[in-house]
Formats: sequence, C-alpha cells, structure tokens
Amino acid sequence: MKVLVTGGAGCIGSDLVEALLSRGHHVTAVDNLSSGKLEHVAPFLNLQGFRFVEGDLLDPNLLDGLLRDVEFVYHLAANPDAKFTPGDATDKDLRQNTIATYHVLEAMRRNHVRKLAFSSTSAVYGISPVQPIPENASYPLPISLYGATKLACEAQISAFQNLFSMQCWIFRFANIVGPKTRKIGRTVIGDFAGRLTENPGRLLILGDGRQAKSYLLSRECVEAMLYVVDHAGLPLNIFNIGCQDSLPVNRIAEMVVAAMGLKDVIFEYTGTEGGWRGDVPRFQLDVTALNRLGWKSRYNSEQAVAMAIEAMLRHMGIARYAT
Amino acid sequence: MKVLVTGGAGCIGSDLVEALLSRGHHVTAVDNLSSGKLEHVAPFLNLQGFRFVEGDLLDPNLLDGLLRDVEFVYHLAANPDAKFTPGDATDKDLRQNTIATYHVLEAMRRNHVRKLAFSSTSAVYGISPVQPIPENASYPLPISLYGATKLACEAQISAFQNLFSMQCWIFRFANIVGPKTRKIGRTVIGDFAGRLTENPGRLLILGDGRQAKSYLLSRECVEAMLYVVDHAGLPLNIFNIGCQDSLPVNRIAEMVVAAMGLKDVIFEYTGTEGGWRGDVPRFQLDVTALNRLGWKSRYNSEQAVAMAIEAMLRHMGIARYAT
Repeated sequence: MKVLVTGGAGCIGSDLVEALLSRGHHVTAVDNLSSGKLEHVAPFLNLQGFRFVEGDLLDPNLLDGLLRDVEFVYHLAANPDAKFTPGDATDKDLRQNTIATYHVLEAMRRNHVRKLAFSSTSAVYGISPVQPIPENASYPLPISLYGATKLACEAQISAFQNLFSMQCWIFRFANIVGPKTRKIGRTVIGDFAGRLTENPGRLLILGDGRQAKSYLLSRECVEAMLYVVDHAGLPLNIFNIGCQDSLPVNRIAEMVVAAMGLKDVIFEYTGTEGGWRGDVPRFQLDVTALNRLGWKSRYNSEQAVAMAIEAMLRHMGIARYAT
Repeated sequence: MKVLVTGGAGCIGSDLVEALLSRGHHVTAVDNLSSGKLEHVAPFLNLQGFRFVEGDLLDPNLLDGLLRDVEFVYHLAANPDAKFTPGDATDKDLRQNTIATYHVLEAMRRNHVRKLAFSSTSAVYGISPVQPIPENASYPLPISLYGATKLACEAQISAFQNLFSMQCWIFRFANIVGPKTRKIGRTVIGDFAGRLTENPGRLLILGDGRQAKSYLLSRECVEAMLYVVDHAGLPLNIFNIGCQDSLPVNRIAEMVVAAMGLKDVIFEYTGTEGGWRGDVPRFQLDVTALNRLGWKSRYNSEQAVAMAIEAMLRHMGIARYAT
C-alpha cells in the first residue's frame, strides 16, 4: 500500500515510517523540518520503498503531488509544543494544526484519498471532572491553543468524513516520550536534565510538582495506532492511546536526579497548579476501548519515562549512561 | 458602555443592535454585507450612539480601529448557511467562522478588550444520543463544516479566555427565525414558500419530513443573550439558547401550505434521514440551565415558526397576509 506520513521526520512520525516500511508499505514522508529532523529519517533514505519530501502543508501546491496513488494518510504534522509562552504568536497552532489539517483533508477530497489517521491529544479534554477520561466523556472545552486547535482538527475530520465518505481514525495521545523526544526544555525530562546540568544543586519545577500525566513510549504509540487501524473499522474511530496510569512530576524529578547520580538537590517550585497557563495539571486516559480491542501497553508511565531519561542522558553524554 | 457587534447587519445581529441601543449603549456594528443587509441597520443610522462600518473580519487592519474604547464584543459574524452543497468551497466555514473568530480574539487580546459573547450553534453537538441535549452532554463530534468550525471557535475562545484572563459567554443557538430570516431557499420556511409559489400543487421536502428541530424567535434569542450576560458571571459561560420543544419538518410544510391558503398539495420527499449531508435530523436543546438562571422563552417552536411564516408571506406579498 502507498502511504503518506505528514510530520514524517518527527519523533513519532519517523518511528511510524520505520514500522510502515517494515510492514512492506511504500512510504512518502513529508516534513517542513520546523521541529522534525532529517537525521530521524536518514536511515531510510536509501530504501526503495521510501521517499522524503521537505515541504510545508500550508503550501497549497504541495499536497496534490504527494497524494498521487496514495491510499492512506497518517497526518502527524503539527506544532508539537503544547506550551504557550507569553510573546509567542497566537496563530501558530491555528496555522500548523487547524489550517494545515484542513489542507490535508481538502487535498484528500480532491484526490479521492479516503483513509486518514490523525494524531490528536489528551489536551482536547480540558480540565475533565471525569478521571480516567473515556473517549465519550462529557468534556469541557480545551484550555490551551494546542488543545483547542487539535479539537478543531478533530471536528473538521468528522465533518469531512461524513460529507465525503471517508474513513478516519482519531488518536488522542497521552504524553509520548522516547529516545528521540529529547529536545532540551520542551519536555519535562529535557527541562529537568537541562536545568540540572547547569546547576546540579537546585531544580526549579514548573507548577507545584503535583501535576500528574500519562506517558507512553513512542514505539508503543506507533504499535497501538497500527493495531487500531487494522482492527477498528467504523467510518469514524476515536481512541485514547496511552497506558493505564499516570506519573507525578515530582517523581520524574526524583528519577532524573537519581539517573544523573546527583544527591541532595533542592527542589523549588513556581507554585501554580499547572506548569504553565493552559497546562492540564492532572489527567489519566481511560484506555478501556483500546484494551478491549486487544492492545495494551507493555510499559507503564514510570517505565516509559525511565527509558526516555536513559536515552536523553546518553544523548547528552552524561557519564553514568555514556558507557 | 461601548459595544462592538460583528455581523451587526444580520438578522440576529441587527435585532441585537436595536436592543443594545434601547438600553443606552454606544454600538458599533461591523458587517461585510455578504449575508447581512444595510436595510437591517438603516433605522439606526441617524442615532447618535450608533455607527455602522462595512468591513470584513478577515482584513487584519480592520479590528484595531473598531476596538478602541470598546468594553464588550458580541461576535455574531459567521457564514450563516449551515447547509453544505456539493460544489461549495470547503473552506468557507473555516475562513468565516474559525479564522475570523481567531482575528476577533487576537485583536481583543492586543487591545485589552476582555469580554466576549459568541453565537455558537446546536450543530456542535453532532448526532447526540442524549436528547434533549444539555450543555455538558457527552457529545460526539459535529458532522457538518458549519458545526465543526463553530466548535473550533468555541475551543479557541476557551483557550483565549484561560490564557488571557478574558470573560466569555458562548451561546449554542437553536434554529433562529424571525421576520428578517426570509431569504428564500436558505431556511426551511423560505424553501417551502419559494417552491409553493412556483408550483402550488406539489412540494418537494428535503429528507423524509421527520426531521425535527427547535426554533426560537430572533427577538427572544437576543433577549436571552442579554439576560445571560447580565446574570451569568463565570469566566467562561456556556448556555443553550432555545425553547423547550421541537417541531417536525412535515408540520412546518402543513403550516406554510395553510398560511398560503393552498389545498391538496402533494408532498414529495428526497427520502434521506437528514435534509442534506451534514444535517442533524433531530435535536432538542436542554434549556434547564437557561430556565434556572431565570429566562424562559414565551413562544414554543410552532408559535415561533408561525410568526416567521406570517412575516415571510407578508414580505413576499402573498395576498392573505398583504392586507
């Protein structure tokens, strides 16, 4: 099958490309390399069934060429940074999530490509009074631009699915971690490792440390997506993708400190309930539907985070893991 | 208070302008006149407290000028046509709803305007298994571009409200009718009146005739909005705006036939469950929250539709109502 992966040079996208290639599919990966990296797809560049295209989904002329003979689109391209920092442009998520997704859907309609899988997020649930959160939870609205624009993508996908007889899979991801998600400062792990490298005696933790979220390894996330696409056959399929539990930020701080071989680190807190404005401080996804379909994560949140810490420290060349 | 009404020359917008002026507010109405009409605001043009600006919200230079000293924005501008007809541009709702609303929010942020009321729609609920539908219903995704892009607006409003300490009111409207909603072909009443004028012996009804929706008079809708803004004081307030019941399309057909003085009209049906792709065939809003706050509609769906039929026929100069 010919498959297009948008955001194919991203952390999850490139893991997905690898899995699709190993299943024998022909894969085109497109990425504007704003956060994706060419090194993530470098190992596949010489493979016959693989093609990489550097391009931006907001370029209206890009997609028609890429969709020729394609049967399935995995649309993972997005602004990956859920955190809005004052001074950021407020239309980044609108453009890279909502409008880019519209371009994908409209190009699929024009080119009669009918199958789409989409990486959404637990952030669409906002501050849910129901925990763990099932897919059909009575949910309030998102509180971040990231979550809001991902919900907008979901809604557009639902409308296109209905109007143009598409078949779609929407995946609401937990926090996805892995050896490639190591950009310092962007994930909680990278944030801690970066700060502790600068000052091994003190660690500033955003929020009150009691934020708790679900984590899943990128490889497992990819496995779950492919499993659901194979086994869920409704016109529109919506699944939470995660593990069964969540992990407090304070525990992650302890894990990073221990992994770096540090002791007596003083934890300091910004003190707000969420790590930043728009942060959902605590959530756990209800993954009953995913489990019932037959897929379950092998690792819990703590194990997934432990592996991500190890990979990050190895990448940073920190001695304990450099051997 | 200085108030900006977007879509101020529309059917609901101009009724709102009138109500705000009668309360002594200074009102600026902006409209691109794509569906709004200058005649709707003509009666106010000589009033001291009123200003009309023809302009499009997608013009990035428009809003800063309009927001000077404004304390409250009623954002009603939108593509008012919920029906998507094959051949229509698929980005009309995206542009006129989602992107235009982003421009309003971003201009409000830049100009430190903190209060926004927004006209959303029952279409955000999609095909809800729960009827009547409460505001916090466990809802599926919208099935029309109109509903999808209105949900996108709601989500953006929620994010801006949270990130930039705004106070917002989101109103999910039933079908709003009134003397001004008489564009032939766009509403069910105008559709029927137009077809029966052409051929008084037969009436083609889109769908199976069993679609049933809630209707509310535009004047009552405006009254409800102003009441909720006065009485609901959370940072983010979401209210269904409608009456208690719904009215089947077949009954509306009978009412139009009777009002036109016709007899023995043969009803024909396109036969689908919804009137068009993306139509939600049956819904009723749960207005308990609105009632508890202290506002209740005086007219039920049938009374509201009867008044709208009368106004439409009078406007069309049909004898029975022309006297």
